[in-house]
Amino acid sequence: MKLYGYWRSSAAYRVRIALNLKGLSCEQQSVHLVKDGGQQHQDDYVALNAQHLVPTLVLDDGTALTQSLAIMDYLDGLSDSNPLLPKDAVARAQVQAMALSIACDIHPLNNLRVLQYLSKDLALSDEAKNAWYHHWIHTGFAAIEQQLQQHAGRFCFGDKPTLADVCLVPQVYNAERFKVPMDRYPNIVRICANCNALPAFMDALPENQPDAQ
Amino acid sequence: MKLYGYWRSSAAYRVRIALNLKGLSCEQQSVHLVKDGGQQHQDDYVALNAQHLVPTLVLDDGTALTQSLAIMDYLDGLSDSNPLLPKDAVARAQVQAMALSIACDIHPLNNLRVLQYLSKDLALSDEAKNAWYHHWIHTGFAAIEQQLQQHAGRFCFGDKPTLADVCLVPQVYNAERFKVPMDRYPNIVRICANCNALPAFMDALPENQPDAQ
Repeated sequence: MKLYGYWRSSAAYRVRIALNLKGLSCEQQSVHLVKDGGQQHQDDYVALNAQHLVPTLVLDDGTALTQSLAIMDYLDGLSDSNPLLPKDAVARAQVQAMALSIACDIHPLNNLRVLQYLSKDLALSDEAKNAWYHHWIHTGFAAIEQQLQQHAGRFCFGDKPTLADVCLVPQVYNAERFKVPMDRYPNIVRICANCNALPAFMDALPENQPDAQ
Repeated sequence: MKLYGYWRSSAAYRVRIALNLKGLSCEQQSVHLVKDGGQQHQDDYVALNAQHLVPTLVLDDGTALTQSLAIMDYLDGLSDSNPLLPKDAVARAQVQAMALSIACDIHPLNNLRVLQYLSKDLALSDEAKNAWYHHWIHTGFAAIEQQLQQHAGRFCFGDKPTLADVCLVPQVYNAERFKVPMDRYPNIVRICANCNALPAFMDALPENQPDAQ
């Protein structure tokens, strides 16, 4: 398998963590999201990913899978180690809800293409763009912090890492890059520290990737 | 079970379709997203949904499930009729990817809270807000139209409705409300017409809900 990603992409970062948790190996191919106007817009990549987004997982038979959560569902089925979702149906829905609250309601509002639209099409100042970014992080993290009070143990849901942690850690990494103060979110901070002590999370860190700058 | 939703919410609309496809009955409770400054912000609702968003599915034991895709995964497990995802692992990931491209990369950019931020916090003109809305619809639909050329039959993925159709139909309903021209998307238009001929989709239409205005 070959993972097309980018060191700083939160969605690719999720898939790297999932690969490590599942004990699966995968070739990595960097798609530089800024160089050359964004390599994700080049014809050969768009043939794999019509959305012009990373990540894409290309299987050995050439089939291209897109959307990090769909890719991780596929990976979860490939190996029994570290299931990304609990077996109990309600717990499973609760973990998915936490992951989706990040993957749907935080990350897509703050990713590169949206920030580019704010700068270029809306001509927002850096200050206004930063306020937008912080607003959606705080809105999302406040809800997650509440959910963690109900569900968290050492990790987001009990004492084993799940899909919720896999989504949370890259989002926090991103928030810290944009200097979002995290003091209102003690559970999020604690859980991220627990995750980042594990090799599966550590090896997936953006700065530990071959295309890191 | 009790579904907290709103007739015009795309995410609640998805869950209504899924309930119908699965042959499950459910009490409905309207959460008016505009009246009283938005009933989704009232304390009794926030106790069920920390994100201040609809839908929420409350189970018979009082457990509240949030996030439409997590709710639908739960519902899919409750009954064997009309599975929302194919059994084959690759096909399953492809259907999920199509659904997620809507649920992550179109809908959250154009939902009520974002449009309110554009108006109130960024003081955008109606024209600029409309351009934003149309931009993300066209970006998303162009990619879906391409994927449909590869996968579609009568529905998004072959000849049975799946999670992809369940997400597509409400998004198209929403796009038409905002007068997005659909002539570039013949497959999307064709598939939505096929879906909307089915009672499961028809009964879930916003205008057929008790709280429709």
